[in-house]
Amino acid sequence: MKKVVTMGEIMLRLSTPRFERFVQAESFDAVYGGGEANVAVSLANYGLDSYFVSKLPKNDIGQAAINHMRRFGVNTNYVVRGGDRVGIYYLESGASMRPSKVIYDRANSSIAEARVSDFNFDEIFKDAVWFHFSGITPALSDEAAILTEEALKAAKKHEVTVSVDLNYRKNLWTPEKAQKVMTNLMQYVDVCIGNEEDAELTLGFKPGDTNVTTGELELKGYKNIFKQMIEKFNFKYVVSSLRESYSASDNGWSACIYDGNEFYHSKKYDIRIVDRVGGGDSFASGLIYGLVSGKNFKDALEFGVAASALKHTIHGDFNMVSIDEVEKLLQGDASGRVQR
Amino acid sequence: MKKVVTMGEIMLRLSTPRFERFVQAESFDAVYGGGEANVAVSLANYGLDSYFVSKLPKNDIGQAAINHMRRFGVNTNYVVRGGDRVGIYYLESGASMRPSKVIYDRANSSIAEARVSDFNFDEIFKDAVWFHFSGITPALSDEAAILTEEALKAAKKHEVTVSVDLNYRKNLWTPEKAQKVMTNLMQYVDVCIGNEEDAELTLGFKPGDTNVTTGELELKGYKNIFKQMIEKFNFKYVVSSLRESYSASDNGWSACIYDGNEFYHSKKYDIRIVDRVGGGDSFASGLIYGLVSGKNFKDALEFGVAASALKHTIHGDFNMVSIDEVEKLLQGDASGRVQR
Amino acid sequence: MKKVVTMGEIMLRLSTPRFERFVQAESFDAVYGGGEANVAVSLANYGLDSYFVSKLPKNDIGQAAINHMRRFGVNTNYVVRGGDRVGIYYLESGASMRPSKVIYDRANSSIAEARVSDFNFDEIFKDAVWFHFSGITPALSDEAAILTEEALKAAKKHEVTVSVDLNYRKNLWTPEKAQKVMTNLMQYVDVCIGNEEDAELTLGFKPGDTNVTTGELELKGYKNIFKQMIEKFNFKYVVSSLRESYSASDNGWSACIYDGNEFYHSKKYDIRIVDRVGGGDSFASGLIYGLVSGKNFKDALEFGVAASALKHTIHGDFNMVSIDEVEKLLQGDASGRVQR
Amino acid sequence: MKKVVTMGEIMLRLSTPRFERFVQAESFDAVYGGGEANVAVSLANYGLDSYFVSKLPKNDIGQAAINHMRRFGVNTNYVVRGGDRVGIYYLESGASMRPSKVIYDRANSSIAEARVSDFNFDEIFKDAVWFHFSGITPALSDEAAILTEEALKAAKKHEVTVSVDLNYRKNLWTPEKAQKVMTNLMQYVDVCIGNEEDAELTLGFKPGDTNVTTGELELKGYKNIFKQMIEKFNFKYVVSSLRESYSASDNGWSACIYDGNEFYHSKKYDIRIVDRVGGGDSFASGLIYGLVSGKNFKDALEFGVAASALKHTIHGDFNMVSIDEVEKLLQGDASGRVQR
Amino acid sequence: MKKVVTMGEIMLRLSTPRFERFVQAESFDAVYGGGEANVAVSLANYGLDSYFVSKLPKNDIGQAAINHMRRFGVNTNYVVRGGDRVGIYYLESGASMRPSKVIYDRANSSIAEARVSDFNFDEIFKDAVWFHFSGITPALSDEAAILTEEALKAAKKHEVTVSVDLNYRKNLWTPEKAQKVMTNLMQYVDVCIGNEEDAELTLGFKPGDTNVTTGELELKGYKNIFKQMIEKFNFKYVVSSLRESYSASDNGWSACIYDGNEFYHSKKYDIRIVDRVGGGDSFASGLIYGLVSGKNFKDALEFGVAASALKHTIHGDFNMVSIDEVEKLLQGDASGRVQR
Amino acid sequence: MKKVVTMGEIMLRLSTPRFERFVQAESFDAVYGGGEANVAVSLANYGLDSYFVSKLPKNDIGQAAINHMRRFGVNTNYVVRGGDRVGIYYLESGASMRPSKVIYDRANSSIAEARVSDFNFDEIFKDAVWFHFSGITPALSDEAAILTEEALKAAKKHEVTVSVDLNYRKNLWTPEKAQKVMTNLMQYVDVCIGNEEDAELTLGFKPGDTNVTTGELELKGYKNIFKQMIEKFNFKYVVSSLRESYSASDNGWSACIYDGNEFYHSKKYDIRIVDRVGGGDSFASGLIYGLVSGKNFKDALEFGVAASALKHTIHGDFNMVSIDEVEKLLQGDASGRVQR
Repeated sequence: MKKVVTMGEIMLRLSTPRFERFVQAESFDAVYGGGEANVAVSLANYGLDSYFVSKLPKNDIGQAAINHMRRFGVNTNYVVRGGDRVGIYYLESGASMRPSKVIYDRANSSIAEARVSDFNFDEIFKDAVWFHFSGITPALSDEAAILTEEALKAAKKHEVTVSVDLNYRKNLWTPEKAQKVMTNLMQYVDVCIGNEEDAELTLGFKPGDTNVTTGELELKGYKNIFKQMIEKFNFKYVVSSLRESYSASDNGWSACIYDGNEFYHSKKYDIRIVDRVGGGDSFASGLIYGLVSGKNFKDALEFGVAASALKHTIHGDFNMVSIDEVEKLLQGDASGRVQR
Repeated sequence: MKKVVTMGEIMLRLSTPRFERFVQAESFDAVYGGGEANVAVSLANYGLDSYFVSKLPKNDIGQAAINHMRRFGVNTNYVVRGGDRVGIYYLESGASMRPSKVIYDRANSSIAEARVSDFNFDEIFKDAVWFHFSGITPALSDEAAILTEEALKAAKKHEVTVSVDLNYRKNLWTPEKAQKVMTNLMQYVDVCIGNEEDAELTLGFKPGDTNVTTGELELKGYKNIFKQMIEKFNFKYVVSSLRESYSASDNGWSACIYDGNEFYHSKKYDIRIVDRVGGGDSFASGLIYGLVSGKNFKDALEFGVAASALKHTIHGDFNMVSIDEVEKLLQGDASGRVQR
Repeated sequence: MKKVVTMGEIMLRLSTPRFERFVQAESFDAVYGGGEANVAVSLANYGLDSYFVSKLPKNDIGQAAINHMRRFGVNTNYVVRGGDRVGIYYLESGASMRPSKVIYDRANSSIAEARVSDFNFDEIFKDAVWFHFSGITPALSDEAAILTEEALKAAKKHEVTVSVDLNYRKNLWTPEKAQKVMTNLMQYVDVCIGNEEDAELTLGFKPGDTNVTTGELELKGYKNIFKQMIEKFNFKYVVSSLRESYSASDNGWSACIYDGNEFYHSKKYDIRIVDRVGGGDSFASGLIYGLVSGKNFKDALEFGVAASALKHTIHGDFNMVSIDEVEKLLQGDASGRVQR
Repeated sequence: MKKVVTMGEIMLRLSTPRFERFVQAESFDAVYGGGEANVAVSLANYGLDSYFVSKLPKNDIGQAAINHMRRFGVNTNYVVRGGDRVGIYYLESGASMRPSKVIYDRANSSIAEARVSDFNFDEIFKDAVWFHFSGITPALSDEAAILTEEALKAAKKHEVTVSVDLNYRKNLWTPEKAQKVMTNLMQYVDVCIGNEEDAELTLGFKPGDTNVTTGELELKGYKNIFKQMIEKFNFKYVVSSLRESYSASDNGWSACIYDGNEFYHSKKYDIRIVDRVGGGDSFASGLIYGLVSGKNFKDALEFGVAASALKHTIHGDFNMVSIDEVEKLLQGDASGRVQR
Repeated sequence: MKKVVTMGEIMLRLSTPRFERFVQAESFDAVYGGGEANVAVSLANYGLDSYFVSKLPKNDIGQAAINHMRRFGVNTNYVVRGGDRVGIYYLESGASMRPSKVIYDRANSSIAEARVSDFNFDEIFKDAVWFHFSGITPALSDEAAILTEEALKAAKKHEVTVSVDLNYRKNLWTPEKAQKVMTNLMQYVDVCIGNEEDAELTLGFKPGDTNVTTGELELKGYKNIFKQMIEKFNFKYVVSSLRESYSASDNGWSACIYDGNEFYHSKKYDIRIVDRVGGGDSFASGLIYGLVSGKNFKDALEFGVAASALKHTIHGDFNMVSIDEVEKLLQGDASGRVQR
Repeated sequence: MKKVVTMGEIMLRLSTPRFERFVQAESFDAVYGGGEANVAVSLANYGLDSYFVSKLPKNDIGQAAINHMRRFGVNTNYVVRGGDRVGIYYLESGASMRPSKVIYDRANSSIAEARVSDFNFDEIFKDAVWFHFSGITPALSDEAAILTEEALKAAKKHEVTVSVDLNYRKNLWTPEKAQKVMTNLMQYVDVCIGNEEDAELTLGFKPGDTNVTTGELELKGYKNIFKQMIEKFNFKYVVSSLRESYSASDNGWSACIYDGNEFYHSKKYDIRIVDRVGGGDSFASGLIYGLVSGKNFKDALEFGVAASALKHTIHGDFNMVSIDEVEKLLQGDASGRVQR
């Protein structure tokens, strides 16, 4: 089994049941998730030896987060215990024209206050083939930004391929701060995932006329920006998922990739949504799995898109699908006929 | 804060969970609601000083109804305690071509048996700017019809603007009885809300060819009836929501208004439905809020339509949306993208 | 009340709640169902004197299965108690492009190991007018195949009309075995229900170009096969439901019938699905009710299609609809407007 | 199977889940129950041919009540459909020193407004061996009192043994009214069940010093009253359950019987309570079963006490226990060891 | 209605359902509570005009906390909106010898970072008769300690009676810090509530030999400490609840009071526990209500003890009992007999 | 970390929620468990490197069983995939005098049909220090008995200490069969756990007068049998838990051990039960942990008893307690006071 590593925060997700609004909720469904943790689970599902690197407090909530990852096959031996709290995000599930709402309460979490000395990156990246992180991790705190760079240096030292999901989070940092930190980190990155908005906010590339609200997609603008990104950072691939938000209940979903030479737009899926949180992470993991397992970049992209289309039908942050299930959808069977 | 008053019945609503049929249900979700109560909650949500006038028994079910309204900001100081029972309605949630089903069990409720002497209308309408009732209240009983007229007289004495939602309920009275009572009450009304069917059944106006079952709308017929209504009753505005029932799961939703001069049809929303009960009440409250807060009648109508479109995505009778949320939809963002 | 008889297995159905995947489930919703049991319940709903013939163990799970049928009006006096276990099927509810998944665990159930001597078929079919079984029952075991034939002989002796739903189940037997057993049983059958796939796998008729995955329907191919079937087995009617699987959430649904003379295709319904398991059984029961109650075969077919369209909106295997509800839909009201 | 008949009201019971107070409840658990209905279910459980006589409205709530009884084996063919509503009772489950609370909302139910002409008592009591009713049924309305007497006359005509559970309900009638009606009905009764309080309130017998609140039992007082009752009404047996309310969570439970000759006090059970509603009805049914099946009156009493001790551990009004389970407890195994 | 004021933090309480351990939980029951908030709700229940002073963020979780208090009758007009987060506490419900477990995550909550300028204490205490706070509020932060003293000064200026519940929380401050802050605040206090452990940790009084773990109570030690406390701080009353923890499921519960002259020990209740969190707060509120409503100090104590005994049977932090219910228990009816 | 190995069956446990009877259940709570699996989880909780050996089908139910163990830290790398089904047991939770009920449906499970060739026992026992199995495993089938002996031989070859829990299951084999198989396997065992009943049924030792039903314990009889057992099989320790079943809700719980020299009876705990299934397994694991970690046999026994007392308060088969929690109880704190 190939060893893959992700590093980031895993939060307690408290979501209102059955489309309830926050002010109605008398209970919360509780799962644990976060950008990189979600990727780690998907990679474990696909049979890779998936390690998650993080820090969690020495209490039962921290333990529950670990158990949640172990349950789905992630190796949590590199999760350090200590610090004050598990970060939280509250999720209100939207429907039709009512958007889903996320309230973050993640300041001062254990991983945001972790130090480089908490981790042995040499051991972590030994024998690894891939490292994935997102723009959320360095945004957590100044220490977290340092931690991220140290991890990246170690990854490169061990000749590990690196992917990033830019994932700008406006409540964690400003575009100025983001661009300063992220521009520096891009030197370690091989595969860069992020839509136009992320590319602008975290790396300063000017978007084209894509209007993300109306859902109209400007593929030309994407290609243009991707070119600039590869020129500046020498990425092997630049990738973006493409979401058309018809409503909170229905989305169009596809992705595009550029290898510096060819620009490729995947098949598009129209999805009736069960839970769209973690959709981007499931896309990244599908793509990573595709590349790790030796698919060409177009097939890897299609695998990522099909995998993440399925994610939108699954409750929680994690994408619990098998390679077989993704392959079946890739082969065109989206009929949803009962499998007996 | 402007003081607004509504008067009517609040019932216990017992709805089957998860689209279950009545014969399957082993539990009922319990909320409290009713036409005017629903309006009262919306008006409180929009920051108005919202008072609800009713009568509820001195038992814990009556108390729970009061608590349910207090929770959402309604002032319940004018709710009198006494009488025998809280009215009930059972709700089976439909889906696709299976309609939702309502079974009423509201006879002999405390408000249906209340007397004029139970209330001090002079105090109730002091400093108020708006009074809203529906055709359900006078239909509850002969006493309730008298009570309604007394309230309307007091409202007018205090120069309070009055709105009515005609809301014909066939299990409460006959068209003949309804027309006799309602025609008399219209002298106190400034803003009249009601579709063609209500206008015919409660006021005797002949509808055009609108076929409410097929969902085809005949705006011309509406304008024609509205004209007659204003001529006869001198309303300031006549208004109707316009529902196109594609199925129990999907509806089209818009509204029209006439000020005696101009006939205006709002934007139309296509809605994937979570809970459509209370849709009309949320429309009335949005319109009232718009007019109370000084919007012109077209903007007030659009506010009402957008607010009530959102209601269809919310479980329960009450519309728990803020002004901000309605405004965002009014500005055209129906994309349902996650709000972080 | 006319006496109708069905014979088969009733299983415990364990379904994950709220679209959860099997690996997420911390609980299962539990109902009891099975092809013929589902038909028995529908026939009882329509006011027939509906008897179910089966065998269930003498434990509380067996009792619960009986109670579940009694609750919905089925007479369970012919259910014999004994044997080892209640068969189980696990159901994961799909959504959008993620298919529903069924895992069967039904081997060695009481009915699969029942003997002819367990039943008094003379008493069972006395005064009965209809007998329905499916291709699942003889597939359960060699004994079950013998049992089925004995029942059929007795039914014919008592001049009972016989219908079959071919229902091929690949995990119960091979096409070779199926064809051997089923071809023999067809001599007792008056009304044969089954799609092209079933007709091929259980009776060896070659399908046309119908591609059940893409949902494109080839009515011509159906007519062709139906003709062959009537020629060979002298059925009074051959019938098939026609499902177009747009996705796990949305299906098109209609049916066709052939009486050896005229081929008729019903109205088609587009359905937003709540629970599609038991859809075929509800179609068969609607058709049977129609024929038993004296409708012509086209009206009987339309009744079956409308009834089963409604089934797709109801949780569980059983179709809990009344004649009135089906008639209302037949008359064209699919608007889903609230019934007060 | 011996035919037994009960007649009375079956209500919708709405109970708060998990010890919640009414003002906390966001849902209600829904079962159906009522004194005589509860007896009918127990008698069906014990293998008798148990018929319930009542009237329920022609709506889905009425149907659900019927289904609930059918599920547990009761024959509902004598339940007439019509009238306005299903009576309701709300139940808040107490714990420790907080008592359970019942709020009745049963006025104007279908059975309360039923007429003698609704029922064919000759058919109902044909071949029956036992008829049971409670003091609740004649208390429902003047018509219900007449109905009860007509049923009693028919029962006697068919030589059916009659039992009554006095069950005084203070919100249905006054002691004066109760005594007037009940004293007259006692001429038809063979077995009279009721504690001292009931005997005083419904029949005017003066209780001894039994303080039902403190739970101290005065068996001597019971024997004294029982003697008076037999002298006046010539009952075959007078019986009372004896509850010692230590708290809402723990009760002592036994019973006593008098045959005009011998006074017998049963074994006492200390019970940790799951649901005590229906406890008295389960006692009556155990006693009736014992007498119907030929046990001597002491053994019948012990069977009733053991059966009803078990009822206190079962959620809902109905006592779902088998003869075997009661016998095991009777034989002294109250150890609660897991039965594998 | 007499105006009473409490000030403190209201947190989101996330409790595992049905005795689940944290590592098992897939959902959390969500209510809102906190020492002073709990007192505010009880005082509102008893008919006082109860105001709660706090600060909550301008998001939906903050709004839900406000709604939760409004629902139960508390006036939230003095709750300021702003700051970053709602504090959280996680609760695992224990049973038998397994203790309940609380994990606090309350740092940096809005109230902990509130400033004196956020509140208008002159307005707040105008016309008030009582002010209650606990040792938790000044422990939240240095600012909160200042805030508390300012509130106390204003209360005294308006001649408001002041009560404190010492409530030492070891994860908020050290005994040294606590003693420094609390000793100063005691000058404003009239009624001091706190057990020996609190008295030692927050005020430095040496406890006697009371072993709170084993549950043996040393009343003599209490009297001794109470004397010292009154001598030093001139309290009008010193009060303590007395808990005997037999297990997580069963407790003994009583209280003692000293007025500088007479030491009085209340009746003791043995309680089967549903939810013991908030038990102390319900005791304080019962005592306060007793004193506010003019009871003598012994009767006020008994009212507090009975009220809080009932609290232990109610889910959530809030004590939802009426004066009537407490009085009934005070009069000795702890039998838990069903109230119909 | 020390490597410990267990081998056996893990089943799907379907338990009725909230004390419901099987015939009431509309859903089942689903966990996975089984004697040895439960031990494996406890040992992982205590920080040992815990491996579980079994066979599970290649379907999602099999995967869910694996995930359930991984979640709680068990290494599932030695679980082979294949075979037909996951065994099931149904559990109805009893209360008071109503016993819990278990219905097994485990025939033909994957592990029951596993072959020696499915496992590499040399690899499995390499570096292991302890192997635990129960009398259930060899009872599953003849193949399973062979498999067990092969495992034991390999364990002994690798000098692994072996413990057995005799656990007679009457629905799996007869005493004759059990004695034949088990007597042979005892040659490999170092620590034998089992009560008198097990010792008689599986090994043929005559019990004393212990009446397990009444809960009276005859320690003398135990010592006598233990002596015989050590004489015959040369065990290092013979151990038994001692359960006094007061009722399904309350048990007394202790244990005794004999080392051939000294007979020691542990402290006894009185337990209010949440879930007693797995109680014996949690005792065995506590004892094993104690012995593996170097405690003397008396302390190891006390650890086992305290650990398993806590298990009775935890829902599910698994004992989710930490060493710290057990130690705290061992030190005498059974007060259940809230841990903040």
